[in-house]
Amino acid sequence: MDPSPSPIEAVSQRLESFVADRVAETRDAGADALDFVHAAASVLDGGKRLRARFCLTGWQSVAGRRTGDGDPGTAVISAAAALEVFHAAALVHDDLIDNSDTRRGRPAAHRALEAHHGASGWSGRAETFGRSAAILLGDLLVAWSDDLLEEGLRDAAHAAPARATFALMRREVTIGQYLDIAEEASFVTAPDAEHADRALRVASLKSARYSIQHPLLLGATLAGADDAQLAALAAFGHPLGLAFQLRDDVLGVFGDSAVTGKPSGDDLREGKRTVLVAYTRTALAPGARRLFDEMLGDPGLDAAQVAFLQETIRDTGALDRVEALISDYAGEADRALRGAPLDTHAVGTLRDLARDATARAS
Amino acid sequence: MDPSPSPIEAVSQRLESFVADRVAETRDAGADALDFVHAAASVLDGGKRLRARFCLTGWQSVAGRRTGDGDPGTAVISAAAALEVFHAAALVHDDLIDNSDTRRGRPAAHRALEAHHGASGWSGRAETFGRSAAILLGDLLVAWSDDLLEEGLRDAAHAAPARATFALMRREVTIGQYLDIAEEASFVTAPDAEHADRALRVASLKSARYSIQHPLLLGATLAGADDAQLAALAAFGHPLGLAFQLRDDVLGVFGDSAVTGKPSGDDLREGKRTVLVAYTRTALAPGARRLFDEMLGDPGLDAAQVAFLQETIRDTGALDRVEALISDYAGEADRALRGAPLDTHAVGTLRDLARDATARAS
Repeated sequence: MDPSPSPIEAVSQRLESFVADRVAETRDAGADALDFVHAAASVLDGGKRLRARFCLTGWQSVAGRRTGDGDPGTAVISAAAALEVFHAAALVHDDLIDNSDTRRGRPAAHRALEAHHGASGWSGRAETFGRSAAILLGDLLVAWSDDLLEEGLRDAAHAAPARATFALMRREVTIGQYLDIAEEASFVTAPDAEHADRALRVASLKSARYSIQHPLLLGATLAGADDAQLAALAAFGHPLGLAFQLRDDVLGVFGDSAVTGKPSGDDLREGKRTVLVAYTRTALAPGARRLFDEMLGDPGLDAAQVAFLQETIRDTGALDRVEALISDYAGEADRALRGAPLDTHAVGTLRDLARDATARAS
Repeated sequence: MDPSPSPIEAVSQRLESFVADRVAETRDAGADALDFVHAAASVLDGGKRLRARFCLTGWQSVAGRRTGDGDPGTAVISAAAALEVFHAAALVHDDLIDNSDTRRGRPAAHRALEAHHGASGWSGRAETFGRSAAILLGDLLVAWSDDLLEEGLRDAAHAAPARATFALMRREVTIGQYLDIAEEASFVTAPDAEHADRALRVASLKSARYSIQHPLLLGATLAGADDAQLAALAAFGHPLGLAFQLRDDVLGVFGDSAVTGKPSGDDLREGKRTVLVAYTRTALAPGARRLFDEMLGDPGLDAAQVAFLQETIRDTGALDRVEALISDYAGEADRALRGAPLDTHAVGTLRDLARDATARAS
């Protein structure tokens, strides 16, 4: 093992040693139980570790300023690892909900578990087994995330406010995910003019606060941040998180499947009710809007139909409006860092992370 | 409110005040978010509060002996409430996995959420929405259970070992639930002679340790139990939990639907691989066993087919064998209490709870 790993490498090592403990703990429960634990572990591979990075940088923003020391301790490494495990759990359940076959270019967890059923020569419907097992796999990962957090908080300073931040994050994202699927169903009963604001509310809960603001504040809290530091990080993290989600929405419609690891136009087939869709619909005449609504959310859309919807979204000016909004939010986030009482080096890292989050192609 | 509620009433009051806090916290997120929180709250109604009772009695077994004081504090009341919320979460996901339409005589959560979709005039398939929303509802309840536990552990003595007990319980039950569905699928590849032992292993993880042993130890740990006390409670709780699950298996096949709140023969339609089924199969000739296997797990079994399977299970002597096993385990549990270093009054309560758990009709 690297004697002095970078903080993000330390997070990966923490995950590996945690998984090794879980494997050891499960040996007595037999081969099927071990397969299940290994399936959970494999979901933790890969990904951008975005939430861990924001957590570590949140810590650095505060700790770097006070001590000049850049070496985070067990608490923040474990908290960052916990965020990644929680996110893996959320993705497992999310892929079930969205009926997504792939994740990070590999089979989604429920598809992998379905394949395990098939390969084992078991009885019953492999698809049903895969979906049931994936519900439980997500549950196991949620338990793991909490265990990791608590292992880190043992003897940590500021454990209580850190725990409260994690707990609030968890409640909010779950409600945000519910609102997301409720929007896909309820848009027919909500006034068209409200759709964009409703989509932004979902983006705030399930992305801006979940993916960026809370991870930043969790790290900062563990470093003993004061109110001004927490406020500055929130003022940076929230608009950046909205910009991040809006970029995600654009990639979900226009992204290159070779880069995103998801089929092109996936969000159109799923019928996601994004700001992009809301802007498009308000710009369409009633007849065109009805046609748009009929196509959106049809899982059988072919390439030509996807291209037609993409063109519609572009032609109405909705894409330009969303790009302008991304730019506005990214600017707001950047301004929040100016003169903020945060470590200068960490602020540089935050600016890099912000650029990656809003200008990315995957 | 009652000025001096019984401990189990205090658990209900704790749940009510916790839910009130969650409702207050969610007001700003709009009507749909509030509906979701209310749906989660409604899942907490009813039930026998078995796990809370074992937790409270575990506490009493230790605390009653030391202080003579029967009034549990915030930590154990919150921990007992957390067990109930966690169990509600598990049931929501379990009903999805088992495709159960009813729970405690009311629509299962996914069916209630499906009905909410229908009543709201939303677009898309109500059934798909119900299932997706129920995954998230379970996730929200898991988060709540942890929040309740942590609220109670704030400033509590013995917080670290109590947290570890809760965490182990959570990991074990999830693995046990996975093994449960894996058994339903993998029985075709496992030797017949191993089925009963495999079913008992599942019963140990997902029932004996989860429903009884860990709740007892959680309460006892919060009262500062010593090793001898923990060992006595485990020696009582584990066999009792096995007896409890075996009674559940019998009720799942022979139970009166008017009393259980579930359709009669439900476990036969679900194809649960219980000890009862394992004993039946080993007693059947190959031809009869093939017919039995073909019928078991068929969701379309009619009343006559259910009656035929019930008769087979009875005629093979499997029912008698399981009843004898229940009796053995109940006896083993009872013997563990003799001379145990536990509060006498609490031991009386444990004996009452044991009788309820093994001799019940629902």
